[in-house]
Amino acid sequence: METWDLIIIGAGAAGLTAGIYGARSGLKTLILEKQLPGGATIESPWIENYPGFLSIHGQELIDKMVAHATKFGAKINQLEPVVALELRGEKKTIKTSRTTYEAAAVIITTGTHHRELGVPGEKEFSGRGVSYCALCDGAFFKGKTVMVVGGGNSAATSAQILANLASNVKLVHRRDQLRAEEIILEDLRQRKVEFLWNTEVKEIKGDNVVKSVTVVNNKTGEIKEVEVNGVFVQIGETPNSEFAKNAGVNVDKEGYIIVDSMQRTNIPGVYAAGDVTIHPIKQIGTAVGQAIVAATDAFGYIRRPYYYKGKP
Amino acid sequence: METWDLIIIGAGAAGLTAGIYGARSGLKTLILEKQLPGGATIESPWIENYPGFLSIHGQELIDKMVAHATKFGAKINQLEPVVALELRGEKKTIKTSRTTYEAAAVIITTGTHHRELGVPGEKEFSGRGVSYCALCDGAFFKGKTVMVVGGGNSAATSAQILANLASNVKLVHRRDQLRAEEIILEDLRQRKVEFLWNTEVKEIKGDNVVKSVTVVNNKTGEIKEVEVNGVFVQIGETPNSEFAKNAGVNVDKEGYIIVDSMQRTNIPGVYAAGDVTIHPIKQIGTAVGQAIVAATDAFGYIRRPYYYKGKP
Repeated sequence: METWDLIIIGAGAAGLTAGIYGARSGLKTLILEKQLPGGATIESPWIENYPGFLSIHGQELIDKMVAHATKFGAKINQLEPVVALELRGEKKTIKTSRTTYEAAAVIITTGTHHRELGVPGEKEFSGRGVSYCALCDGAFFKGKTVMVVGGGNSAATSAQILANLASNVKLVHRRDQLRAEEIILEDLRQRKVEFLWNTEVKEIKGDNVVKSVTVVNNKTGEIKEVEVNGVFVQIGETPNSEFAKNAGVNVDKEGYIIVDSMQRTNIPGVYAAGDVTIHPIKQIGTAVGQAIVAATDAFGYIRRPYYYKGKP
Repeated sequence: METWDLIIIGAGAAGLTAGIYGARSGLKTLILEKQLPGGATIESPWIENYPGFLSIHGQELIDKMVAHATKFGAKINQLEPVVALELRGEKKTIKTSRTTYEAAAVIITTGTHHRELGVPGEKEFSGRGVSYCALCDGAFFKGKTVMVVGGGNSAATSAQILANLASNVKLVHRRDQLRAEEIILEDLRQRKVEFLWNTEVKEIKGDNVVKSVTVVNNKTGEIKEVEVNGVFVQIGETPNSEFAKNAGVNVDKEGYIIVDSMQRTNIPGVYAAGDVTIHPIKQIGTAVGQAIVAATDAFGYIRRPYYYKGKP
């Protein structure tokens, strides 16, 4: 059994920031990551709203944060998924694919995963035309016709990415407007992105790969067959909070971890930060801010300096 | 009368971030700054805990944020102090030294100013040995003896800065321990910083410039005269919230602006972010996170897109 002061689960922007602050405050700090560091940040080819960088590739920003956290002494164990959590006691136990750890405090920064449409053909053609990450898979559709499904900033950004690669980009949204930054919307208008408003996907069809998508107009009821080579599903996220919830951490009805203004969950010594929490604004800069608060309070919880006030 | 969608008061890290997000969302955004952009950030010679930069000079980080905000269309009016605010109506009126502005929403990011000791000699020798900014004034004390008064991260950082310049640094604190990151404490131990614990300043003495400081040990009552050339006072901050308070914005008993989890004050359309707010963690990264939330909610408040929920 390895013993640490602070264990952070997830090495995205929030987890790495918590690592920087945990290590700088003198806590023996471990970050566990089931894949490689990065989280949602590495799905962005250009980040232009993290203050300090006019424009930076998501992977480059994460590389900087990894260097930053490790420089100050945080350890990052990648490709090591958590398989069980025991959080209720004073010592928290984290069982991973490799071993079992004990920590005085835990910060959960596990982010979210992409929500699925749940239509026929989606699972069948996943990886054969159906994708949840334009940056990861966009290059396979050079010169082809692709459809983006969704209406938020990530759908709009996916359409931007694909407009650089595909010959034709169609954006399908169940409403008649997007929920995205104006600067991105203006860019989509200038590129030749075709909008299919009030439209929902019914089925994804093909043989070996995707050939077409059946869509329905939710105002008129009209059903159409749209020929495409790829479908990028960007209809929102689902929090990665299953393990935390099973260990007794309170979540809302969508599964987001409930935290107070110091990022504390209902269990003493257990914190959450970033996209996995109930905070409605999901940005790299807000994840960073939340992680700083979580790590700072965790330091107080573990070391109990004179000024630590605990639960307000 | 100039009309803007969003006016931000204060061009520190919080104000500049709100400018980036305001402008990117398509709001006509103005940042008013009474001095030059920077706020507390430019008093740091090295920032090593803003994720993404291993180490960056405060002024350099601010320069990047200024470039960032202006690139996306925010306007920064510097050397233009606010002299009166009228926030209660639907249109907010901001009177400055130069003109009068109207805005649909206002974000207050005015930060704090340094608290004074309130002892004899402090005002008299201000600028003649008494300073509140080691980075600004440290170079005047090359090879000399200086005293830092205070026990937080800023006192500790000031001692670090001065240890590079002065021949002798004494740190005076009324408690028997500091409240600073371990990595900074370790650095102070390795340099020859002398600690005077349980000690308070009674008087600052000199002729034309500071010559000595009278201190008392608050455990033993012992009074000593300590010869120094400079005194750096770092005993905390006072929020710059006077104008906001007079305009009806609720503050706590120390003057910090009370905000909810969306950075809203008690007045609809009026937000606050950064050091001026009640949030106990005062970091660049937390100011950035708060400012993103404030600007995002202000966009919703002004434009009322379908997904804006308003007061929860």
